[in-house]
Amino acid sequence: MDKKKFRVVVDAMGGDFAPMNEIQGVISVFESKPQDLDLEIILIGNENKIRNSLEQFNKDKQRNLNYSIIHAEEVITMDDEPTIALKKKKNSSLYKGLELHSQGYADAFVSAGNTGAVLSTATILSGRINGVSRPTIGSFFPTKNRYPTLVLDVGANIDTKARYLYEFAVMGSIYATQMLGLEHPKVGLLNIGEEETKGNDVLLEAYQLLKSSNLNFLGNVEGRDILNGSADVIICDGFTGNVILKFAESVLDLFKTKLKSFANKNIFNTILLALLKPALKKVFAEFDYQKYGGVPILGINGVVIIGHGKSSPLAIQNMIFKAIEQIKKDINKKIEIALTNSILSTNN
Amino acid sequence: MDKKKFRVVVDAMGGDFAPMNEIQGVISVFESKPQDLDLEIILIGNENKIRNSLEQFNKDKQRNLNYSIIHAEEVITMDDEPTIALKKKKNSSLYKGLELHSQGYADAFVSAGNTGAVLSTATILSGRINGVSRPTIGSFFPTKNRYPTLVLDVGANIDTKARYLYEFAVMGSIYATQMLGLEHPKVGLLNIGEEETKGNDVLLEAYQLLKSSNLNFLGNVEGRDILNGSADVIICDGFTGNVILKFAESVLDLFKTKLKSFANKNIFNTILLALLKPALKKVFAEFDYQKYGGVPILGINGVVIIGHGKSSPLAIQNMIFKAIEQIKKDINKKIEIALTNSILSTNN
Repeated sequence: MDKKKFRVVVDAMGGDFAPMNEIQGVISVFESKPQDLDLEIILIGNENKIRNSLEQFNKDKQRNLNYSIIHAEEVITMDDEPTIALKKKKNSSLYKGLELHSQGYADAFVSAGNTGAVLSTATILSGRINGVSRPTIGSFFPTKNRYPTLVLDVGANIDTKARYLYEFAVMGSIYATQMLGLEHPKVGLLNIGEEETKGNDVLLEAYQLLKSSNLNFLGNVEGRDILNGSADVIICDGFTGNVILKFAESVLDLFKTKLKSFANKNIFNTILLALLKPALKKVFAEFDYQKYGGVPILGINGVVIIGHGKSSPLAIQNMIFKAIEQIKKDINKKIEIALTNSILSTNN
Repeated sequence: MDKKKFRVVVDAMGGDFAPMNEIQGVISVFESKPQDLDLEIILIGNENKIRNSLEQFNKDKQRNLNYSIIHAEEVITMDDEPTIALKKKKNSSLYKGLELHSQGYADAFVSAGNTGAVLSTATILSGRINGVSRPTIGSFFPTKNRYPTLVLDVGANIDTKARYLYEFAVMGSIYATQMLGLEHPKVGLLNIGEEETKGNDVLLEAYQLLKSSNLNFLGNVEGRDILNGSADVIICDGFTGNVILKFAESVLDLFKTKLKSFANKNIFNTILLALLKPALKKVFAEFDYQKYGGVPILGINGVVIIGHGKSSPLAIQNMIFKAIEQIKKDINKKIEIALTNSILSTNN
């Protein structure tokens, strides 16, 4: 067997704590990677800042740190419009990194930066997988079970056709099978009731597409099913998915505020909550799922992983390992086969 | 000043714990109502069950219990289709009660039953307020502030036009002003970004309608703004609102499961959580807002309050008092004036 070399571009200027968290993440990848994994990381961004961070965090001079640095003058901020990289900031780490990837100089691109900008730039530069109408972004939600629920789309596509929803289901199922190890992931269609007759025309049509597919389709699911784990993959339009994702991210804040005002009432409460803090932190951490993982953009001709702006070094590390796993498992090829060979895809 | 007599129909067969919670709620209304409030409650439902519950919960024979009972043979279940009362179950407590109300024999109708059935039946029997295109249902979400956020629509209208969204905003603002005492309630349009250019055509048009209205319009808000209290009234289509409402209702379950599994780890954890239980209960209770209040259907020619199926006796009591307050404040007249006199309503 040929030993493949993996090249991953890391957008060193992406997240809110860039390049510190990115550099720490990269260092820990080299500390924890299997010995036989032949990996090169291409750090892209402001060279001075990257070198400073490397000096700061790589004090004991890891010998096996196999990286190169490519300087990029500009930075895409979180407030920039999604199309800015394509229109104006072609010297940004985001654009240059995705360009390298699309030209075949790297196998994957990882960023904790502006999701919309990564999505639109990656879609234009790398193009779509054969059979895919619209790339999609998913997000993981914690559940009562061992596995999280993958909800997609969470913002890439506001207006969706039934066919898009079907494609999201196919891509999500393949991802869940390959990356979470679920054999026949259960797919639910997000709706406002379980009956087959619920929802608008797009949902009614999507229901029939999913029903006649070879996916493990559960039928319609409701808002409450996202967290209860009854489905492994939940499909919705990007408007609803985005609103829910942002709502979910804000739940913790409210809890923390309420608990804090309880703690401030008297010393007994303060002590009680201090004792419980480690447990609550753990419960809360699970809720902040996206901070610890990163999610792929599915449907583009490439391996692009995006993370939350607040991605920790551990999250960056996980994103890099996920990118490698996605390449190894050839998920894009599986998506192409599923969407070009199915009866559905030729009929619709 | 004339002293008005209030007649409120209570659907005694509505909630999951009917008629027990309904009867207890009614009894506590009479126990806690101001002396000068002239109130008659019309209990509608299975007469035997109602009498049994009254006997059970009114042991000390409240003298001032001013009620009458109207027997209704049929019951609408939570699983019944929204149109069932209109099509088949005209002898149900829900249909007969709403009919009494629409014919003027009662000032208000209160039910913890099937929301969809109450909505469609009330809309047909009572009709819409002049100027209202579509009745709407709102729901309260807890916030970090003193006041909850009123989100509407949460399920009455899946597909909305810009004009409907505008009307929801007007109705929600009037409700928040009158019932929560907010002077210029801040109105937000739920979207997936704050910029004026975000969203589909309906949202773009609604944004302009709201911007040129005399409402206190904040602009677009995102999923995270529902709980952070930045807006008092948040407007969205009924699909998104319903998914969020059900998602929000499920958040507690997940927290409880996670905390329980933490408590089960060792005796120290068990004790910690037992000590913290009262506090958590209070925080959680606030999250379960709709269980404690009840929400109005806004836009129909009548005063109809619906509650969560799990409404407690206290919730039923609150719903009855809210109905009376809504009558007193003549909210429907204010909605009619706002929606028939505005420049917008004549132009659109």
